[in-house]
Amino acid sequence: MDTLIPYEREVFYYETDQMSIIHHSNYIRWMEEARVDFLDQIGLTYSQLEEAGILIPVLSVSCDYKQAFRYGDVFQIKVFFEKFTGVRFRVSYEIVCKRTGQIHAVGSSEHCFATRELVPLRMKKEYPELYQKLSMAAEGILDNKK
Amino acid sequence: MDTLIPYEREVFYYETDQMSIIHHSNYIRWMEEARVDFLDQIGLTYSQLEEAGILIPVLSVSCDYKQAFRYGDVFQIKVFFEKFTGVRFRVSYEIVCKRTGQIHAVGSSEHCFATRELVPLRMKKEYPELYQKLSMAAEGILDNKK
Amino acid sequence: MDTLIPYEREVFYYETDQMSIIHHSNYIRWMEEARVDFLDQIGLTYSQLEEAGILIPVLSVSCDYKQAFRYGDVFQIKVFFEKFTGVRFRVSYEIVCKRTGQIHAVGSSEHCFATRELVPLRMKKEYPELYQKLSMAAEGILDNKK
Amino acid sequence: MDTLIPYEREVFYYETDQMSIIHHSNYIRWMEEARVDFLDQIGLTYSQLEEAGILIPVLSVSCDYKQAFRYGDVFQIKVFFEKFTGVRFRVSYEIVCKRTGQIHAVGSSEHCFATRELVPLRMKKEYPELYQKLSMAAEGILDNKK
Repeated sequence: MDTLIPYEREVFYYETDQMSIIHHSNYIRWMEEARVDFLDQIGLTYSQLEEAGILIPVLSVSCDYKQAFRYGDVFQIKVFFEKFTGVRFRVSYEIVCKRTGQIHAVGSSEHCFATRELVPLRMKKEYPELYQKLSMAAEGILDNKK
Repeated sequence: MDTLIPYEREVFYYETDQMSIIHHSNYIRWMEEARVDFLDQIGLTYSQLEEAGILIPVLSVSCDYKQAFRYGDVFQIKVFFEKFTGVRFRVSYEIVCKRTGQIHAVGSSEHCFATRELVPLRMKKEYPELYQKLSMAAEGILDNKK
Repeated sequence: MDTLIPYEREVFYYETDQMSIIHHSNYIRWMEEARVDFLDQIGLTYSQLEEAGILIPVLSVSCDYKQAFRYGDVFQIKVFFEKFTGVRFRVSYEIVCKRTGQIHAVGSSEHCFATRELVPLRMKKEYPELYQKLSMAAEGILDNKK
Repeated sequence: MDTLIPYEREVFYYETDQMSIIHHSNYIRWMEEARVDFLDQIGLTYSQLEEAGILIPVLSVSCDYKQAFRYGDVFQIKVFFEKFTGVRFRVSYEIVCKRTGQIHAVGSSEHCFATRELVPLRMKKEYPELYQKLSMAAEGILDNKK
């Protein structure tokens, strides 16, 4: 379990709804933004992975909403790489208000690696180098060359 | 626990992503579409609730993705009203492909009733009539006037 | 120039913003929904076109907003196929409130036909049958088998 | 007509569609992101305007798509404040690929200032100070205190 530089950005106006809060579905998208940024930080650039034919579909997501974000807020997301079995991995997220430091939501997602036809990939066998990187990320021993 | 007419529509082109599947965040939005439709079917029209000053914020969501939807598919969502405590309620969802009948995803969400200032509302005390309707929905004894 | 059955649906809650109106960007998505429905009505199913390797990228869009839509509204979109040159076509849209019949917005979009690599396709030469259908649609003489 | 620091960010995965390009509707949202950033740069913070009861609805948008953006790209948007009549204003946008410097799209939008009830506001009379700032922005003489 490990954390690098948290992902951060302002909320967008089009992410608000008529309760005058950020619509809850956007948090699921933010988790993707933060996950992609995290993978990039450990040397796995998403667009390069896809060009190499490795897709990372989502197997599950969950989010607990504790406090609403409002327009004008800046959020930060701490990403924790939690588990990596060689086929699946699990990520958890802490979504914090930058100004107050308070946790507004916590979430998680599960993923696998797959071919373009969405057939699961055994990373250890097919991409041993990437497997190594991910294993280390999962152990919190990050080979953090960017 | 009960089911009325399942919610149904075609997926939209703008809901696809470059994996050529529906992006996972849209399922969270679909669950909202289906929930609103369900409440409408049991006589609780969302826009009327909001005009009356009753908001229904989301406390949590989760979704397990079993099979991808692709462009051209029609989805159906069966909504189950699972629990109602007078303050909170829980809904679960079965997202099915219309053509094959196969389950593509299952999800759940938790909600409370709240004022415009997002202060929780005790429905039994403040809106006894709505409380009655919801209790019956929760018990599967639907007073289904539409 | 011609009209078939207008496209129609309720607005979604997640399409509202904190002005308590539908966010303007959604109208561009609605125009896509209506365009796809229109093409389907004249016998050109979008998902089949894409499977055949024909993409329909957007070259331009415009929208004039006259009256806001609010949550609870149902919109209808009349689609007019305006011009077809064999390479490009132009569509215009009238977005109406179902309840009042009032025009809330008018829009337009331009498109071409292209290969998967986004190279423009000359429909007359490469897909003479589709070219025929589209020419007739453009002339308002719709061979409306569905 | 004037330009400050261009707005810039990476495209998001969920903004792609199954043509493997960024879906065209997102450019309309990007224009909003860039406009909000521009107003902020000239001292008009959107969230403060809204708290003061000043809304900025969109009257029209248009966008010409010249080249697709793909996942992995970073876009930059140059914003030009084009006209300000005291009631309405017009903004234009140049959307550029950061890596190549090439223009991928050009757009425009028109706006008015309005009360929470969406009644147009005469800025000169009701908010003379803001009127001054906007007039200067429109003339390219920016009182750029941030």
